[in-house]
Amino acid sequence: MNVRSQAITVAKIRGNLRETSNDRVAVEEPLEIRLGFRQGDQRITQAVSITMRTPGDDEDLAVGFLFSESIIRSPADLAIVKPCQGDNTVRVELEDNVAVDLDRLQRHFYTTSSCGVCGKASLDMLRVEGVSPPPTATTFASDVLLEIPGQLRQAQATFEETGGLHAAAAFDRRGNLAVVREDVGRHNAVDKVVGALFREQRLPATELGLMVSGRASFELAQKALVAGMPLMAAVGAPSSLAVELAREFNVTLVGFLRDDSFNVYAAEERIDE
Amino acid sequence: MNVRSQAITVAKIRGNLRETSNDRVAVEEPLEIRLGFRQGDQRITQAVSITMRTPGDDEDLAVGFLFSESIIRSPADLAIVKPCQGDNTVRVELEDNVAVDLDRLQRHFYTTSSCGVCGKASLDMLRVEGVSPPPTATTFASDVLLEIPGQLRQAQATFEETGGLHAAAAFDRRGNLAVVREDVGRHNAVDKVVGALFREQRLPATELGLMVSGRASFELAQKALVAGMPLMAAVGAPSSLAVELAREFNVTLVGFLRDDSFNVYAAEERIDE
Repeated sequence: MNVRSQAITVAKIRGNLRETSNDRVAVEEPLEIRLGFRQGDQRITQAVSITMRTPGDDEDLAVGFLFSESIIRSPADLAIVKPCQGDNTVRVELEDNVAVDLDRLQRHFYTTSSCGVCGKASLDMLRVEGVSPPPTATTFASDVLLEIPGQLRQAQATFEETGGLHAAAAFDRRGNLAVVREDVGRHNAVDKVVGALFREQRLPATELGLMVSGRASFELAQKALVAGMPLMAAVGAPSSLAVELAREFNVTLVGFLRDDSFNVYAAEERIDE
Repeated sequence: MNVRSQAITVAKIRGNLRETSNDRVAVEEPLEIRLGFRQGDQRITQAVSITMRTPGDDEDLAVGFLFSESIIRSPADLAIVKPCQGDNTVRVELEDNVAVDLDRLQRHFYTTSSCGVCGKASLDMLRVEGVSPPPTATTFASDVLLEIPGQLRQAQATFEETGGLHAAAAFDRRGNLAVVREDVGRHNAVDKVVGALFREQRLPATELGLMVSGRASFELAQKALVAGMPLMAAVGAPSSLAVELAREFNVTLVGFLRDDSFNVYAAEERIDE
């Protein structure tokens, strides 16, 4: 079993009071994702990513990462997904018929060769990848949205303990949480959610929204979009590029979802009265 | 001048009330760091990093990143640092006599070839890089530490406006902020602080502490350590590997620094009564 938090002793200081007590911190350790695939006559194995993550759901993390990067597209692409807990590695072997673009492993969505590095290029790249707007039919009621942060906190056993983990969840129109995952890295928490949906053959998740415990960056909004999710909600603020992405691809973007109110930055029409 | 926040319209929803209003979001755009250096008889230029960042202090970000990765060691290594705002690029040209290990640009601190991927290997790698513990002589009074978060908030003009930026600051024993920087990415905010200190020839910063607005991860603690800073403080929780690093390299690690109390996870002896 994975240990997501770790006991430590800590000095607690308040004014002149100083006491030693027992506490817990979120575990952070590197994970290497090793990809095996066929190229020409031979099979190749290559490390494609090392990320600092909280152990647990490593298969989901690996698969979600590879899907978000458009390296795999369906569960049928996968021959073996095998975590090796001891050495913090997940081995993903693809079926022989899956073509892998080696350049893609280096390059990310941020650049195109044509116009250099800019926010616009980052969005254009998503178009080149064939990403399309999620359907408009799925809507969410405001009072359902307002309940999600509380539900997420309840589901977050580890968070309560350490205060050190980001959470992400997929939820449906009725406010039920379909998948909840935690990690010290917020992009990892989202990769774990997307990877779990992928492995359950639930992508594109056109009926589900994504909730994240922190802020909404471009990278997170991109992961929701690639997973086909029509709505992304964050407890914190969105960035300019997350808003641009949401507006260009018609993803409903909700920020500052806390207490009894929230802001909608894009595709407001999916929010019911 | 750089624009760190951007005006947008937003729908604010509270219960059945829905109103459109003007708001601001933190700007997020990619930055490419392009490194020029001599190899054998010729000069080479290579893109070494693309990061999503908030525009502003791009030279500090580039230089801080290169220093944290141990690619440059002193301001004398730098021939030209030239930001090109239009295309979100900073060009860093090194002096001819600076040797660059190309492998280092790919590899990070997370792995060693000998023992695979693990937290211990990440710490060992820092030893291989020749990183040593900061001096023990610099101490900080609790009441000085307790004032830093408030000072950081005051200094954070943009944060107040968007709620979307992380902040990092270097501060001295008397509680004065030496450098304050903001970014949508917390590692970028710290790179900007370290880069500013580097360019002012203030590294190793053995008399300064580092304050960050979020949580304390391994990556941030590593940056503080490489910069020679004897103390790192965070508003939020530390991760397990940040605590391990701080204990192994004797960096004072403070977490949950807010209101009237804080926790000390390592090297408590630098905290005066």
